[in-house]
Amino acid sequence: MSRLVELGRGLGVGGGAPVAVAAGPCSVESRAQIMATAASVAASGAVLLRGGAWKPRTSPRDFQGLRAEGLTLLSEAREATGLLVVTEVMDVETAELIAEHADVLQVGARNMQNFSLLRALGRMRKPVLLKRGLSATLREWLAAAEYVLAGGNDRVVLCERGIRTFEPATRNTLDLSAVPVLREMTDLPVFVDPSHGVGIRSCVPAMCLAAVAAGADGLLVEVHPAPDEALSDGAQSLTLDGFGDVMRRLSPVAEAVGRSLAAWKK
Amino acid sequence: MSRLVELGRGLGVGGGAPVAVAAGPCSVESRAQIMATAASVAASGAVLLRGGAWKPRTSPRDFQGLRAEGLTLLSEAREATGLLVVTEVMDVETAELIAEHADVLQVGARNMQNFSLLRALGRMRKPVLLKRGLSATLREWLAAAEYVLAGGNDRVVLCERGIRTFEPATRNTLDLSAVPVLREMTDLPVFVDPSHGVGIRSCVPAMCLAAVAAGADGLLVEVHPAPDEALSDGAQSLTLDGFGDVMRRLSPVAEAVGRSLAAWKK
Amino acid sequence: MSRLVELGRGLGVGGGAPVAVAAGPCSVESRAQIMATAASVAASGAVLLRGGAWKPRTSPRDFQGLRAEGLTLLSEAREATGLLVVTEVMDVETAELIAEHADVLQVGARNMQNFSLLRALGRMRKPVLLKRGLSATLREWLAAAEYVLAGGNDRVVLCERGIRTFEPATRNTLDLSAVPVLREMTDLPVFVDPSHGVGIRSCVPAMCLAAVAAGADGLLVEVHPAPDEALSDGAQSLTLDGFGDVMRRLSPVAEAVGRSLAAWKK
Amino acid sequence: MSRLVELGRGLGVGGGAPVAVAAGPCSVESRAQIMATAASVAASGAVLLRGGAWKPRTSPRDFQGLRAEGLTLLSEAREATGLLVVTEVMDVETAELIAEHADVLQVGARNMQNFSLLRALGRMRKPVLLKRGLSATLREWLAAAEYVLAGGNDRVVLCERGIRTFEPATRNTLDLSAVPVLREMTDLPVFVDPSHGVGIRSCVPAMCLAAVAAGADGLLVEVHPAPDEALSDGAQSLTLDGFGDVMRRLSPVAEAVGRSLAAWKK
Repeated sequence: MSRLVELGRGLGVGGGAPVAVAAGPCSVESRAQIMATAASVAASGAVLLRGGAWKPRTSPRDFQGLRAEGLTLLSEAREATGLLVVTEVMDVETAELIAEHADVLQVGARNMQNFSLLRALGRMRKPVLLKRGLSATLREWLAAAEYVLAGGNDRVVLCERGIRTFEPATRNTLDLSAVPVLREMTDLPVFVDPSHGVGIRSCVPAMCLAAVAAGADGLLVEVHPAPDEALSDGAQSLTLDGFGDVMRRLSPVAEAVGRSLAAWKK
Repeated sequence: MSRLVELGRGLGVGGGAPVAVAAGPCSVESRAQIMATAASVAASGAVLLRGGAWKPRTSPRDFQGLRAEGLTLLSEAREATGLLVVTEVMDVETAELIAEHADVLQVGARNMQNFSLLRALGRMRKPVLLKRGLSATLREWLAAAEYVLAGGNDRVVLCERGIRTFEPATRNTLDLSAVPVLREMTDLPVFVDPSHGVGIRSCVPAMCLAAVAAGADGLLVEVHPAPDEALSDGAQSLTLDGFGDVMRRLSPVAEAVGRSLAAWKK
Repeated sequence: MSRLVELGRGLGVGGGAPVAVAAGPCSVESRAQIMATAASVAASGAVLLRGGAWKPRTSPRDFQGLRAEGLTLLSEAREATGLLVVTEVMDVETAELIAEHADVLQVGARNMQNFSLLRALGRMRKPVLLKRGLSATLREWLAAAEYVLAGGNDRVVLCERGIRTFEPATRNTLDLSAVPVLREMTDLPVFVDPSHGVGIRSCVPAMCLAAVAAGADGLLVEVHPAPDEALSDGAQSLTLDGFGDVMRRLSPVAEAVGRSLAAWKK
Repeated sequence: MSRLVELGRGLGVGGGAPVAVAAGPCSVESRAQIMATAASVAASGAVLLRGGAWKPRTSPRDFQGLRAEGLTLLSEAREATGLLVVTEVMDVETAELIAEHADVLQVGARNMQNFSLLRALGRMRKPVLLKRGLSATLREWLAAAEYVLAGGNDRVVLCERGIRTFEPATRNTLDLSAVPVLREMTDLPVFVDPSHGVGIRSCVPAMCLAAVAAGADGLLVEVHPAPDEALSDGAQSLTLDGFGDVMRRLSPVAEAVGRSLAAWKK
């Protein structure tokens, strides 16, 4: 069984705790967008709000995020809904600032072996959500986690988000076998991000259900009020209603494997 | 929704029918082995017996299967248990003989683009279980299925069995996203083989649950009375008890996604 | 150093013999096409004529080759030019017929682990050109070769033709490191097929030069009198002039690494 | 044809300039080691000295480099031999310090999409050697280069160093087809690192020759006075004599493709 990692305000993941669902847009785009999303995903049962302020984008010409303004909006959304905030940290320079606004610091796939960043996060006292690199083996991923752990920060959560393969039909190939295999290699909790994993909106719900059935300790799901107008990752984002529907279908699957879904007390 | 494919004696898969589980050893090794396995997996709820008579092995020095004798033993096991038999066909030469003993003809991953074999199966009147090639894209897999369909045989079932990636911790990377993605590309039913997919006995149960949660129409599971003595694939075979345990855990997951497990009437 | 394998009429490959170049169209399409190609590639310095009569195609709706008629045309071209003929064998049924017309029997990437076919070729007395499977490891490839060797046919030549990776810019990823690595694992000669490896006409010449510099014992190059009208693989086929140009550039590279190009005595 | 990029003291790469060879150890380990290596590779014809001071290592328990002391030693070696120094930059914090000692700043494969680092290098006025990410497509690689170029630093050199595939026999799969394919996509010069690409000492020479035959503008080769005692990458490092031998064999190959090897005037 995995260790229990406390993410904030009493919410623990791993260690047999209920399955925690983080939901929200790829990028924070506006106050209206993030507030509407936060309220809706909270009502549907999410316990964490995800949303990018600094965005690592393949091309310098792509939208790079609202940055400091995005952080402020995330804080507002947390205030309004009680959701914990998880957002991405791209470099040492901005880590302290982001840590003031976020509850959980996400390291993206492209930075999984950014060892300078990992060392810096090891010196901080915030939980870290470490995504698997695009072509990282499980052993390399755990070795990357050790850079954080070695600094004295033992609150690390892993997040499978799909690996790069030859298959062009999906954005990545979601490696759900990582969930049970990691269970034998480490005691760190394991989340799954089906949105990046498959990259096709209509296929995300099935992979959410499968991830929980495989034993995931949490999910990271992209949700947007108007996915077709999203500035990034619209094709893989669920609508607000779509996310509500997934949560309703997820609950019985969690129960079928002896788990439940984490919830904030009302 | 997928089409309903009739496998024999009224058992249909796909089209919203109950989830069918095929179980049995990688190779038929002896009368005692196959009879004990068949009786046990039938009692645990499998509806098909899998077992190889002709075995495609990487090296000519590996065990190549009992061949004709293996077929006779599979027939005996079917007689004794009522399970339908699924076994692999490696070439045109032996296809007719195998078809006399088997209910479902399996095409292995290495032969997914053996077009001469696929054409021959298209002219026969037996259902075909077409495994995905080790590095076949979904489109190539469907194009391979068309070789069978084009011959007039419309009883084709696809079986995801893991793809080849860079990850050394697992035998293959089981691509469960193939299940929902194929649902949008084809109406052929989709099975999943978690045994080859992950290749680690202790991780097979979690992937069985995940496959059904993802919407699989059936499973193909390796089961052996004494896996450590198996002539092939022992490391990924469940014990008889282990399989029974999986079946008990599988039933509530199937129900949670609105399905049930196929069963023979007693 | 590799063993010398005799391909016919005194032409040996491997064992330090001159580098042999096979050239010709993907598919034999007509008498005019194959005769013009054969005459031209012979004049440019090829010693073998390649050309498919039976074609393994992804979809049953693609052109499947001229079959028996294609064999006859290849025989004619051999008669006219003195080139040895290498053509693909797809199944046991047609192997004997093809062997009557061809000097070298090619096993394509999709059939690298068609063990029934490999066994049949092991019983025949024709040299076999065994292409690497799309995702075959070097060890699996050598194990496949053993199926032929074990039958008593020791004239096996390996042919690297690119492996399947995540990179979409090229048709496959040509693994030229296979050439020196195989030199330490086996004494079988190694050919390289840059046409399938890279799949882009303008990049084929550079990979021909690189393959010879890496130590390849031979090349397999697709050449077509009118690539844009080819029924298959036109995008990667050199024109007749383009092939002549490659041969002129190849000769000094072969000499720079202490080899020469094989040639028929005039 | 590619653009000419000036690396320092009049040495240009790309644009049809002679092929530049960088050689040296994976890590700077001691004064004796780096001085002996520098003197020897200079005598053999290298024009750049490679050597890591900050080392990105998979595990925090691996040797992490001599850091500032390593930089000082690299400067000494440059002083003594006249070689330009190329060394890796891992983060923004140390970039300025490293730039004081190095002529060319290398971005390693794991940091290819460390966009904060790339932006910082775009603001500096040192040439950047950008290695391809472990599973980066050619398009992603060029988009990463744009992060540097967009900052006003137009001295970017690409370096192919092998990609991650399923093949376990080699450390990576060296994608030499990247050389001609990139020639059609960009005008940036392209280097090749056969040492990381293949990872097997005895196979590095063949891949050096092949890289130059394919049209590479330069090579990056690991050389160590006592590879078996190296603190990192010993298995793929050439000995001093081995490197000298490669240089002697490289010269005729360069000439065969109409190039020569870059050299400092004596």
